[in-house]
Amino acid sequence: MIIVSDNLQITNPMIQSAVDQMDPEPIRRLGNLCVTAGAEAIDINSGPLTRDPENKMAFLVKTVQSVTDLPLFLDTTNPKALEAGLIESHGPTIINGFSLEPNKLEYILPLAKKYQTDIIGYLLYPNSQVPVDETDCMNIALDLYLEFQKAEIDDARLIIDPVIAPIIWEDGNRHNRAIISVINNLPNLLGFPVRTIAGLSNLSSGNIPLKKKRLLERSFLPMLAASGLSLVLLNVLHAETMMVAGACQSLLNPEVFSWA
Amino acid sequence: MIIVSDNLQITNPMIQSAVDQMDPEPIRRLGNLCVTAGAEAIDINSGPLTRDPENKMAFLVKTVQSVTDLPLFLDTTNPKALEAGLIESHGPTIINGFSLEPNKLEYILPLAKKYQTDIIGYLLYPNSQVPVDETDCMNIALDLYLEFQKAEIDDARLIIDPVIAPIIWEDGNRHNRAIISVINNLPNLLGFPVRTIAGLSNLSSGNIPLKKKRLLERSFLPMLAASGLSLVLLNVLHAETMMVAGACQSLLNPEVFSWA
Repeated sequence: MIIVSDNLQITNPMIQSAVDQMDPEPIRRLGNLCVTAGAEAIDINSGPLTRDPENKMAFLVKTVQSVTDLPLFLDTTNPKALEAGLIESHGPTIINGFSLEPNKLEYILPLAKKYQTDIIGYLLYPNSQVPVDETDCMNIALDLYLEFQKAEIDDARLIIDPVIAPIIWEDGNRHNRAIISVINNLPNLLGFPVRTIAGLSNLSSGNIPLKKKRLLERSFLPMLAASGLSLVLLNVLHAETMMVAGACQSLLNPEVFSWA
Repeated sequence: MIIVSDNLQITNPMIQSAVDQMDPEPIRRLGNLCVTAGAEAIDINSGPLTRDPENKMAFLVKTVQSVTDLPLFLDTTNPKALEAGLIESHGPTIINGFSLEPNKLEYILPLAKKYQTDIIGYLLYPNSQVPVDETDCMNIALDLYLEFQKAEIDDARLIIDPVIAPIIWEDGNRHNRAIISVINNLPNLLGFPVRTIAGLSNLSSGNIPLKKKRLLERSFLPMLAASGLSLVLLNVLHAETMMVAGACQSLLNPEVFSWA
């Protein structure tokens, strides 16, 4: 399970301000912290970047790559920002991501073909609603894979995100139990060892006390790991969560156990 | 997932001394602590009780039942001690447990029929060795169930323990990954919703630093919970482990999430 940092988010006022002012220092500092904390890849969640999207995403990519060579996930719904990031990036880059939403199929998915990158596909209905049961998730996975094949991208480029639901949603628990099984069964359904990713912090969106948020996250993480999740997007500065992630690796390692 | 306390163990010198002197107070104190900490059942691990087994087990059962009405698991390889405990107990009592070992089939298993109690069956070879792979575990489960049926006990009385292996064993990781799947698949194999139990502390037996033991345990627990484990045997005085157990219940509850 590869640890992808979700720390670099435009919803963080410090990052918003750094992007507005094109000030690289706060972004470098955060990037360095994430690397030190054990991030194995970094998600750049820039939001839609409605004003000057190309320059701002290029600035973000350039700044992060000035402190690390880790793979970058470009997390934006804006195809212009995305393409500028793909052009700027000189290392492994992953598009985050597309779904069955018509705009994403038309403007996002083809960029994975054009720039020969991996791409995340979300298991969401075309209207972006979250499916509840495993059967619905699996049907969406088949539709998504069909679109992916139509775009003539190699299977090995696909990473599926079954989209963790906030636990406080009415069907959140039912959905999240389903996706444990979805992660386990997707490779059989699609007939190749498709990779999967999940964003852990989604679980505890909403009005839950902070300590309980963290507890829920580090209790759900081993369930995802045991189901075979390939990558997890999380806050790498949560030390206890990172320790649990490390313990999961130790427990699930097919080799003889070692703390080395 | 029902939480069974593993705290009352004869390997605890305080308990050993209390049993030797037939002094109920230390046992009552520990029993009260376990109840307060959230135990839903209590395992009485008396060891073989080679001297005066009947009186000592009766004393243990009586003493624990003087502070709580929780179900008791009688955890001994000594059939005499076990029978004395079954006679003394006036609440729900579970035999812990039998295996394919000939002595256990001959002297332990029939007590579940005689006293109409639940009984735990260990997935171990007749020589008490631990099987490594899922297929081996499943074959043993079938043999065990056959013996259980021969003893003419109701299916609903059976609880299977796939026996967590110490992670530092050569095949410990392989075995423990297998049992996650075994727990999930046993009900289908046996054709009824057979309950399962696992002893969490087995995982970290051996020379591992204490903090890492606890981290491993609370990382493995959600994996077991998500696989459908019915009961877990653990140290209820480990507060963080108990919090994770509670979070697992919240996450896996088919009802709408609530912290109430």
